[in-house]
Amino acid sequence: MTARRMHMVAYLKTGPTANHPGAWRHPEAALDDIFDPARYEHIARVLEDARFDACFYADTFGLPDIHGGNFDAYLRMGGQISYLDPLVVLPIMARVTKHLGLGATLSTTLLHPYWIARTLASLDLLSGGRMAWNIVTSATDLEARNFGMDGIAAKNERYDRAEEVVAACNALWESWDDGAMVADREGGVFIDPSKVRYTNYEGRYVRTRGPLAMPRTPQVRPVFMQAGSSDRGRDFAARWAELVFCTPNTMADGIAFTTDLKARMAKFGRAPQDCKVLPSFMTVIGETQSIAQEKYEYLQSLIDPDAQRMLNSALMGVDLSKVASPEEMRARQGNQGIVGSQDRVLQVMKAEGIAFQDAVAKPRSLLVGTPSSIADTLEEWFTADACDGFIITPTVHPRMFEEFCRLVVPELQRRGLFRREYAGATLRENLARG
Amino acid sequence: MTARRMHMVAYLKTGPTANHPGAWRHPEAALDDIFDPARYEHIARVLEDARFDACFYADTFGLPDIHGGNFDAYLRMGGQISYLDPLVVLPIMARVTKHLGLGATLSTTLLHPYWIARTLASLDLLSGGRMAWNIVTSATDLEARNFGMDGIAAKNERYDRAEEVVAACNALWESWDDGAMVADREGGVFIDPSKVRYTNYEGRYVRTRGPLAMPRTPQVRPVFMQAGSSDRGRDFAARWAELVFCTPNTMADGIAFTTDLKARMAKFGRAPQDCKVLPSFMTVIGETQSIAQEKYEYLQSLIDPDAQRMLNSALMGVDLSKVASPEEMRARQGNQGIVGSQDRVLQVMKAEGIAFQDAVAKPRSLLVGTPSSIADTLEEWFTADACDGFIITPTVHPRMFEEFCRLVVPELQRRGLFRREYAGATLRENLARG
Repeated sequence: MTARRMHMVAYLKTGPTANHPGAWRHPEAALDDIFDPARYEHIARVLEDARFDACFYADTFGLPDIHGGNFDAYLRMGGQISYLDPLVVLPIMARVTKHLGLGATLSTTLLHPYWIARTLASLDLLSGGRMAWNIVTSATDLEARNFGMDGIAAKNERYDRAEEVVAACNALWESWDDGAMVADREGGVFIDPSKVRYTNYEGRYVRTRGPLAMPRTPQVRPVFMQAGSSDRGRDFAARWAELVFCTPNTMADGIAFTTDLKARMAKFGRAPQDCKVLPSFMTVIGETQSIAQEKYEYLQSLIDPDAQRMLNSALMGVDLSKVASPEEMRARQGNQGIVGSQDRVLQVMKAEGIAFQDAVAKPRSLLVGTPSSIADTLEEWFTADACDGFIITPTVHPRMFEEFCRLVVPELQRRGLFRREYAGATLRENLARG
Repeated sequence: MTARRMHMVAYLKTGPTANHPGAWRHPEAALDDIFDPARYEHIARVLEDARFDACFYADTFGLPDIHGGNFDAYLRMGGQISYLDPLVVLPIMARVTKHLGLGATLSTTLLHPYWIARTLASLDLLSGGRMAWNIVTSATDLEARNFGMDGIAAKNERYDRAEEVVAACNALWESWDDGAMVADREGGVFIDPSKVRYTNYEGRYVRTRGPLAMPRTPQVRPVFMQAGSSDRGRDFAARWAELVFCTPNTMADGIAFTTDLKARMAKFGRAPQDCKVLPSFMTVIGETQSIAQEKYEYLQSLIDPDAQRMLNSALMGVDLSKVASPEEMRARQGNQGIVGSQDRVLQVMKAEGIAFQDAVAKPRSLLVGTPSSIADTLEEWFTADACDGFIITPTVHPRMFEEFCRLVVPELQRRGLFRREYAGATLRENLARG
């Protein structure tokens, strides 16, 4: 029997900031190449050389303006923003890699399933079966308003629609059988039409007639990623997700989340191993513990507490300059906010015995240590069944990934916890085989 | 004074067939690499080596099923279809070129302006200012049905909406001033927020709050391409287009179209040279006229008359298996069909004195000859002010482009009619400078 192995997925943004609101100020943070294809080729190669399962781009359609009611401070302080549509860099990353999975975040609330299905099928064909879809329902009014709506719909309605969008996409992706493209020049037959059929999906929220205009792709459908932490979100993930991204504060929080999610999968006839649960970590790595600690302190000194609060306002969907408690948050958030981000703040309050306003201004904890001590922590979470692997979220881009890939990955490989070579031809196969 | 120079734009499809319904059966037609990035890199390099202004991808969302009421014969006979979303190959083509303009066809009827503006801005940033937007309103019920509508809207409503979509996109593209991204690490200022403002576009059909989440792009807005031939379409082009694609049957038809369009531009305060009118040609090139003629006859022998009728059904928006006259066509087409394609059939009927049913089954005429005789024809159209250059549409891909670029382009360069080097840094500059 093959040993169970970790899965590794990189969290990426088309900008200098992900979840660490000060890292862009670090002297090694790349700021000049955000619009240069070479930036994206480089990170793809670094991750593939280290045998990461995949990377994915987090994404929102717009500038967060929840905190203080405008986007000024968020822009000034270098908050997390997609400065490029990730879909324009994923093809370039596919071109310079052969195995790395590539994830796109596409909203079921703001985009039509025909468009989603066509784009992801195109990328799955072009990449030879390496696409993932990070399925989001969008949780901000600002995105809804960019798309002409008054505000974002309520969570239940968003998830009702998301179920239909996924079902419609699945139907579109199955509208061609294998082997339809025969390309018989002499006989004058390019496609065998008996292998193509209308989709005719009719839901309450979405309709599409289909079929798609392209052959069945290597993975048929992309690998489904999801990050829902609400009750509806967890059920959605339990039904559909093959990768789940979560942000527990402690290992105990991770075990609680993972146990709950895997239990829910049985309702949908799925085995626990059919979905990989990956908590996210940011790392600070040093040759010695004291080097790591000093690097950590330098990095954290770059964070303005207001920048941290603004990031949390954007994630939690509420203006934290005006909210002093979880109760006020719930009363004011309306339809906005990511439950996983809210949960983490509550976990931090409880674990550290601090007030809500202090918890939302407190930078997220980082994993700080030597390659060996960081591998110890990852191994501990993994063997305790707190997770099936990790989402690695950058601080200083691309430096943090380069350090993690050169220093921590080989240590995990030596311990037999992580692959040395890719085993599968597609992303889904790599997730199944470890 | 610099001599007036031709502009050259390649018409491309993400499939083996463009407007010649038999060319995919030619032994040199590439059929195995439709999903291989190398196919798209190769054609981009061929066109840039020949100093083409740009290429663009024609596109529709779905499988034409107008002819005979289903898509079976169209698929079987290898009709014109986008087997990949062109947006996944344009970034790859941008990566291997430095000057070639890159055009995407995006529908103002089926896509939201926030999405259009963000995608094209991303590509303009990534390509260093080389994007064009082929603005279409979509003219088929099948596309509308893929997007959940009952059918495509009437032409006037589509153009009313298109005006709003373009205005909304322009407002979004202007939502950041130059120099907003200051990236001052020490001062902790990434973006100067005083250079970013809300868009707040409110039309009858579309709304968007904005701003975009990316800096002003090298071209600010992409070069606008358009192919409308109806009265509304010509006015739209006269107002907005910087490149117009047309399909006149004879030079006289080309002069009539170009004269009309340039006269309309004055209504919108634009000078005639602000829009380049480019009729489309397919070429067959031989070392001698008789070689070219024999190559032409071989190529035309690959066309099934039904395949030509099906292509025309798809373009003209009416089932030509059931329609015997222009009057019946107008009575049955509903909201569908491209007026330029209908006009061309009427021009062919008149020029050749043939019936409607014969005109729609007749393959489009090709430009057949030696490099020198083909250059003569292009020069004749150009100097007669029938056009400002040409859309070159493939028969056998990529062979026809390779021949045109190696044989005809150098002849045009020798005559001083076409650039030997790119003069501008962006597509718009290359269009202005010749």
